[in-house]
Amino acid sequence: MRVDELETPVPVVDIDLMQANIRRLQKFLDDRQIANRPHIKTHKIPEIAQMQIDAGAVGITCQKVSEAEVMADAGCTDIFIPYNILGESKLKRLMNLAKRIKVSVTCDSEFVANGLSEAAQKNNLTLEVLVECDTGAHRCGVQTPEQAATLAKIISQLPNLHFGGLMTYPNMSSPYNEVVADFVAQTRELLKKENLEIKRVSGGGTPTMWQADSSIGITEHRAGIYVYGDRLTMRSGAVTLETCALRVWSTIVSRPTAERGILDAGSKALSSDLHGLDGYGYICEYPEAKIYALSEEHGHVDFSACKTKPQIGERVSIIPNHCCTVTCLFDEVVGMRNHQVEVIWKVAARGTVL
Amino acid sequence: MRVDELETPVPVVDIDLMQANIRRLQKFLDDRQIANRPHIKTHKIPEIAQMQIDAGAVGITCQKVSEAEVMADAGCTDIFIPYNILGESKLKRLMNLAKRIKVSVTCDSEFVANGLSEAAQKNNLTLEVLVECDTGAHRCGVQTPEQAATLAKIISQLPNLHFGGLMTYPNMSSPYNEVVADFVAQTRELLKKENLEIKRVSGGGTPTMWQADSSIGITEHRAGIYVYGDRLTMRSGAVTLETCALRVWSTIVSRPTAERGILDAGSKALSSDLHGLDGYGYICEYPEAKIYALSEEHGHVDFSACKTKPQIGERVSIIPNHCCTVTCLFDEVVGMRNHQVEVIWKVAARGTVL
Repeated sequence: MRVDELETPVPVVDIDLMQANIRRLQKFLDDRQIANRPHIKTHKIPEIAQMQIDAGAVGITCQKVSEAEVMADAGCTDIFIPYNILGESKLKRLMNLAKRIKVSVTCDSEFVANGLSEAAQKNNLTLEVLVECDTGAHRCGVQTPEQAATLAKIISQLPNLHFGGLMTYPNMSSPYNEVVADFVAQTRELLKKENLEIKRVSGGGTPTMWQADSSIGITEHRAGIYVYGDRLTMRSGAVTLETCALRVWSTIVSRPTAERGILDAGSKALSSDLHGLDGYGYICEYPEAKIYALSEEHGHVDFSACKTKPQIGERVSIIPNHCCTVTCLFDEVVGMRNHQVEVIWKVAARGTVL
Repeated sequence: MRVDELETPVPVVDIDLMQANIRRLQKFLDDRQIANRPHIKTHKIPEIAQMQIDAGAVGITCQKVSEAEVMADAGCTDIFIPYNILGESKLKRLMNLAKRIKVSVTCDSEFVANGLSEAAQKNNLTLEVLVECDTGAHRCGVQTPEQAATLAKIISQLPNLHFGGLMTYPNMSSPYNEVVADFVAQTRELLKKENLEIKRVSGGGTPTMWQADSSIGITEHRAGIYVYGDRLTMRSGAVTLETCALRVWSTIVSRPTAERGILDAGSKALSSDLHGLDGYGYICEYPEAKIYALSEEHGHVDFSACKTKPQIGERVSIIPNHCCTVTCLFDEVVGMRNHQVEVIWKVAARGTVL
């Protein structure tokens, strides 16, 4: 079947482009002796995770325990969950996972560390725990090298926990590398006095992937979006239009006015993620068009800046703002080569928010 | 099991509140002799659609053919799809649906009407088609009563189509009722000359449900959100905090600073829908708190305005901005009474964007 015979809206991945993206980052990180641990939240598809592992990834990253369960069921044997995991039920699931595959996690508080230790003791296993550090993203994470060192020491002393190192999720604030490098170096210095070594420093993000450098102390990198690419990572400069592997194909279902066109893809296909971008996606066939609003099943497009305007029934392909929130809206993603459908992947880890 | 024993994030519906919401709108529309045709895009759960039908709804509304297929499979026998349906594959699915249940659709162009007619002829059935009118929402729809009358005449003359009436999706612009009333009255006048009667005028939306009035020409109403309620419909005044039946329960997983708290619910649980609201949800236990940003699996909360601030591990319940984009992110929705889990509904029509 050809891609233009598929019903819309439908997310379609150019397999050649995606595999080139996988190889490109792998080589870049290999050259710098940085372990590649891709974040599968972007695709949530075990077959693509396997491609990443086959290309040289040391393991994968999942954001939630339930997401990791799906990937473990599919054969992934080394999963990092950079998340504060707490609560009896979730800790039980984490322990069941740690019994069958290699698992590491993070924490940014003694509360979470205590919970992990108690659960690990009950289950008679040792869990690797990294300290999450806030180096500018202002999300989770300890705020200072002093706090990082204190928590590292607590982890190292708690029963059945193994202090694994540091984790950060960098943002784009400048000077990014200096902040991370300083944070890591200062924490390392503080821990030297405790005879604690920082073996692993896990950095993340596609926007900053080409700045990943072992000179700043990073030993592994977690990028998610790089497999597909999207408008957010195009804006950051890390990805180009030509390397974007995922597009959502959509059909013009209405042309109510001379300027306005309506797509059959709305917020339940493109997601409402904006992150400061202008409009809700990039229409490849009409680069001057603007998706200025989304209803749930309608995309509202202003074609006034386009010389030629589409007809009702015409199909267009859209690079979404943020591919991670798009793929989890679909049951399946189509893989194509040369406009021919080659494979239909089940988004197996879709809906795994627990 | 008690609700506070459920793993988070999890959407939980107070069944009593929801059933009261269903009864309240049904009585209001019954009193005005307006048919109730609830939009199931909000919940996508056949069991809740059945509650709406049992309470007196004449049928249901679905936004996409694939959504209607799920509802038909579950036993719904009268479905309105107010959408421009086009393309060979989708028309084939529509016809298969029309062979087994009562289906009506809309169109706003001759192009779509022709496609519907050809498909209906091929399948030897008659399809009821309403003309979609733009009365201020500026989405799909013909722009003037003259255009509506012209398209109605075309539909009435095309083989195997039956002109059913008019459909509009009102927005909140004032004076809403006058615009709709004028549009309907003028179109009715124009069609009188053609001996064409407008039997059905379908209005929609929860924000405007209490303004639904047969005096403006509306014969049926399509409300979706009213079953659950959310911040958007609270803002409109159509729903109150006390009648909101759906909350997403979430856990505080990090308190990195004195003011900041991080939830385990992000854009993959609450959706990024903002629609001009301040923040990404209303935390019932901390009304002064603001969910100022969402990562995919983290909610970033500013608790600075709250006198007491939550501890790590504390559970909170969130009224989302827009419940329709939330429920389609989850495989299941929990139904509870008096804090006890009574039922777990599968979101059967989740992911039905085709």
